[in-house]
Amino acid sequence: MALYPRPIENLIVELASLPTIGRKSAKRLAFKIIEMDDEKVNRLVNALINVKKEIHHCKICGNLTDKEICDICSDESRDKSTIVVVEDSSNIISLEKAREYKGQYHVLNGLISPRENISPEDLNIESLIERVKDGGIDEVILSLSPTVDGDLTINFLSEIIKPLGVKVTKIANGVPLGVSLEYFDEMSIYKALEDRREI
Amino acid sequence: MALYPRPIENLIVELASLPTIGRKSAKRLAFKIIEMDDEKVNRLVNALINVKKEIHHCKICGNLTDKEICDICSDESRDKSTIVVVEDSSNIISLEKAREYKGQYHVLNGLISPRENISPEDLNIESLIERVKDGGIDEVILSLSPTVDGDLTINFLSEIIKPLGVKVTKIANGVPLGVSLEYFDEMSIYKALEDRREI
Ligand SMILES: [Zn+2]
Ligand SMILES: [Zn+2]
Repeated sequence: MALYPRPIENLIVELASLPTIGRKSAKRLAFKIIEMDDEKVNRLVNALINVKKEIHHCKICGNLTDKEICDICSDESRDKSTIVVVEDSSNIISLEKAREYKGQYHVLNGLISPRENISPEDLNIESLIERVKDGGIDEVILSLSPTVDGDLTINFLSEIIKPLGVKVTKIANGVPLGVSLEYFDEMSIYKALEDRREI
Repeated sequence: MALYPRPIENLIVELASLPTIGRKSAKRLAFKIIEMDDEKVNRLVNALINVKKEIHHCKICGNLTDKEICDICSDESRDKSTIVVVEDSSNIISLEKAREYKGQYHVLNGLISPRENISPEDLNIESLIERVKDGGIDEVILSLSPTVDGDLTINFLSEIIKPLGVKVTKIANGVPLGVSLEYFDEMSIYKALEDRREI
C-alpha cells in the first residue's frame, strides 16, 4: 500500500522540486494546503498561472515586466546615457530600492559559466551590444557578482564594449569576494556602485 | 512606480501566505518560478488543483484519501478491535512507516484548544464515539501531542469513552513534554505507543 494517496504524493513531489524546498517541508506544506480554504488555494493557482502568462522580458532591457516595454525603459525622466548591467531582474529591484540610480538597466539573465555550460550566446548580450552601438550611451556599469563567473562575464563584456568607444566600469568589490550579490542589501550594492572604477 | 509588476507581486503575496514561507523566500521562489519551464509550473498547478479536487476525509476514520473509504479502513487484514486516535493524517503516515501497528485509526483534525477557540464540536469526535458505540472495539489508544491541548483532549475523550466499557490508553510520554508529535521519528512514536498505559 502506498503511504500517500496519489494526488498528495504528486503535490509533495512538485513542491519538493521547487528551489529551497526539501521533501520534509514539501510534506508539511502539502498537508497545510489540503486543509486550506479552496478560495485561498485558487488564489495561489491563479497567481502561478498569471505570472507565467503575463510576465516576460522587456524587449529593450530584458527586465521582467507585464508590458511590452518595462516601466524603467519607458520612463522618459530617467537618464538614457548610462546602463547598469545586472544578472537578473531581482538585482534591479535591489538597486531601485536604494532610490539613487536614475539611469537604464540591462538584464543578462545569468553569467557566462563554463562549469554550468552557459556561453555568451545563452545570455541577453547581443541586445546590449546593439543598444551600445545605437549610440547615446556614455557608460556601461557592470554590476555583477564578484565570483569566477562574474569576472569572466565582466572581461568578456568589457573586451567587446570598450572598442565601441564607451566607458566600461564595474562596481567596487565592496562586498566580500566569492559571494553572490543577492545576499547583500540595497545600500551595500549602491555604495559599491558609487565606488565603481574604470576597467 | 511599483517595484514589482502586479502579477509578480500577487505571486509573492500568495507564496508568503503559505505556512513556513516568509516574504524573502517567497520573493526568491517567485523569481525562480518565473524562469521555470511552463510545463513544470503546469505540473505544480495541476497538483494543487487535483489535491483539492480529489483528496477528502475518509468517511469512517477521517484520514485523507482519494477514495470514499481510505486504504486502511478498507484493508480487511487489519485488526478491527483497536483504534489509534491521532491529530491529523500525517501522524498516521508516521505510524504506518514503523510497520508495527496493524489496527484502525481515527483522525480528530486537531486538538481541543480554548486558546485557539477549538471546541470538541469542531473536531471529528462524534464519529469516533459512534464507532465505539457500534461495538467490536476493545481499546482506544490516544496518540496525541503531550501538550496542554493534547492533555485536554485526552481527558475529554477518556471521560466519554470509558463509560462505554472500552479500555482507553494513551501513548507513553516517551518524548519530551510540550513538543508537538510531528517532530519525532516513527520509531520514537511507536515505542511510546508500545509503552501506553491505561488512563
Ligand atoms: Zn526595460
Ligand atoms: Zn479510513
